[in-house]
Amino acid sequence: MKYHASVDITLRQGILDVQGKTVEHALHSMEFGSISNVRIGKFVELNIEAPTQDSAYEAVKAACEKLIANPIMEDFHITVKEVA
Amino acid sequence: MKYHASVDITLRQGILDVQGKTVEHALHSMEFGSISNVRIGKFVELNIEAPTQDSAYEAVKAACEKLIANPIMEDFHITVKEVA
Repeated sequence: MKYHASVDITLRQGILDVQGKTVEHALHSMEFGSISNVRIGKFVELNIEAPTQDSAYEAVKAACEKLIANPIMEDFHITVKEVA
Repeated sequence: MKYHASVDITLRQGILDVQGKTVEHALHSMEFGSISNVRIGKFVELNIEAPTQDSAYEAVKAACEKLIANPIMEDFHITVKEVA
């Protein structure tokens, strides 16, 4: 079966997000003063062949832990959907 | 009201994703040969004060078009949720 996975990767709470702070500051200098707490992470999409949705999820989780994300500094959230 | 917005920013179809290709190649050289079509984008989270959910969405959309995303090369998808 073919699955499509989306992974949201975010810096862990407590780790200073310099890029987010910079974007927030720029937004405040435009007309977006009501925006706060901007945090910038990564968004990864991929296709995967696997026998079941659970095994697809486990393979993507392993790939995130070993290569895609930095488990010391980042959290990740995986969504897997079957592709028709 | 206070809202939390998540924005997935992806490179448009047809634009070469060099970072994604590099990650895909690295995954294939590990045990992840079943993964294909890796594309890497940005994930932005923020809080926003707005009178309604629709106005929060519109403000985030404007911020994406003017600063956060590059509308020539990138597509973005916004999810807005009310914060308790």
